[in-house]
Amino acid sequence: MKAKVYISLKKGILDPQGKAVERALATLGFSGVEGVRIGKYLEVELKPQEAETASQSVKEMCEKLLANTVIETYRYELEPD
Amino acid sequence: MKAKVYISLKKGILDPQGKAVERALATLGFSGVEGVRIGKYLEVELKPQEAETASQSVKEMCEKLLANTVIETYRYELEPD
Repeated sequence: MKAKVYISLKKGILDPQGKAVERALATLGFSGVEGVRIGKYLEVELKPQEAETASQSVKEMCEKLLANTVIETYRYELEPD
Repeated sequence: MKAKVYISLKKGILDPQGKAVERALATLGFSGVEGVRIGKYLEVELKPQEAETASQSVKEMCEKLLANTVIETYRYELEPD
């Protein structure tokens, strides 16, 4: 079973990395870009288990380690093998 | 219009950051984790334009700047406003 976790900065939190990419894109001639926000994407491979247990477990991982919930939000989806 | 871009390491490419997170999760007591791979998640805000133009444009961004196609793969999806 695999969990895909998406972590992104909350609205209002400065994202200098995103700003840098935005400028780089403009320099490269991409004029249609109005903003870039950069987050993390994690794939967590889990032992076979019930979907509900897995979901609870991944939520706990996010809260305790993967995301900094002060400045980041997370969402995740589970994929059966 | 918004593009969501997911960039992950190709199979076989070492991911020390993922390994570190995997160990940290084990230390925290999450015993059901078999592997962690870490990638990037970007949200690119685009000026209103046709979906096909946008798609082509985002693909070019990935190839030219966002992903290192030697070691990374990317996928993206477009979301109308």
